Amino acid sequence: MTDPAPRRRGRPSRTAEGGGPGTRERILEAARAQFAERGYDKTSVRGIAKAAGVDAALVHHYFGTKDEVFAAAIEVSFEPALVVPAIVGGPAEDVGERLARYVIDIWENPATRAPLLAVIRSALTHEAAAKVLRGFVLRRLLERVAADLDVPDPQLRAELAASHMVGIAILRYVVQVEPLASADPEEIVALVAPTLQRYLTQA
Amino acid sequence: MTDPAPRRRGRPSRTAEGGGPGTRERILEAARAQFAERGYDKTSVRGIAKAAGVDAALVHHYFGTKDEVFAAAIEVSFEPALVVPAIVGGPAEDVGERLARYVIDIWENPATRAPLLAVIRSALTHEAAAKVLRGFVLRRLLERVAADLDVPDPQLRAELAASHMVGIAILRYVVQVEPLASADPEEIVALVAPTLQRYLTQA
Repeated sequence: MTDPAPRRRGRPSRTAEGGGPGTRERILEAARAQFAERGYDKTSVRGIAKAAGVDAALVHHYFGTKDEVFAAAIEVSFEPALVVPAIVGGPAEDVGERLARYVIDIWENPATRAPLLAVIRSALTHEAAAKVLRGFVLRRLLERVAADLDVPDPQLRAELAASHMVGIAILRYVVQVEPLASADPEEIVALVAPTLQRYLTQA
Repeated sequence: MTDPAPRRRGRPSRTAEGGGPGTRERILEAARAQFAERGYDKTSVRGIAKAAGVDAALVHHYFGTKDEVFAAAIEVSFEPALVVPAIVGGPAEDVGERLARYVIDIWENPATRAPLLAVIRSALTHEAAAKVLRGFVLRRLLERVAADLDVPDPQLRAELAASHMVGIAILRYVVQVEPLASADPEEIVALVAPTLQRYLTQA
């Protein structure tokens, strides 16, 4: 992850009111925190702007609507533009392992786990958030993965791989069913990698 | 599924106020409908009793607390006591296919899909519901499956299989990402069965 170093939450000094270097990143970070803490429904562009110490107009300027801020806040957790080539572009024989480890690493990191949980919770309870997840994220992320696959129905297979990782995240981190919740991440990667490998490479 | 024939929702006649044949089933059906329509948080034993046309004390008598009604309402969708032996007890070489088809059939049936969606939504947003899912259902269901498996870490493997089906349900029926949302159920079964087969039978 190329995440910036953790920064204190809360309102920065008022001198940061305008744009300038790092403003976009500060807004995104505030958005991630707000969506994670308050959920999709209770998060507003105004609230994000306030937490980032900028004017709401600047949030609109950089990202557009609340849905678009939401999509950007999710995307920064995945960084598909950086990550997809690294996963899918490597040696084909262990693409499943790379993908499993990438996803587990995101979930094991509390800084990226919280916003992802917020995304999934929001998508399950608000159609607007589900639409964002469907339209912006899954398609942008999974279509990139699928574009590099040499199997029949690559998009469907990319989605099946994704569905497995979503389900693991839910049972391990949300429902916290044992022994999955306490299993060593490497044990999960080892068990799951062949599944992803088959979906992504075997006709 | 041995579900009773669909019955009209709403309040039955007041003559059904007491116990008697079918009372337990009527309460369960009302509970399923209430949890599905109102969610975990807004459903009460009193509301279930009212919808079933019985006294709240009778709901407590049959099921105990709200959490226990919730667990029973989920369990009646899965019927683990009937289904697990049929799935796990059959020929080992296609246990994956039987399990995939069983779960997809439950989700394709609107009568069983609605309460399951309610369960998953509730578990993701309310710790009390997550605890019920964790304690009563996943363990009771998956421990039965795991008990019949001849693999290392059978419980973990049963949970990985379950996680895949949960994730598919979320992406297909809730987020409705395409092409998964419109894929033929049999195509999904064919793709997923080898995954479940590996988790449940291969060391």
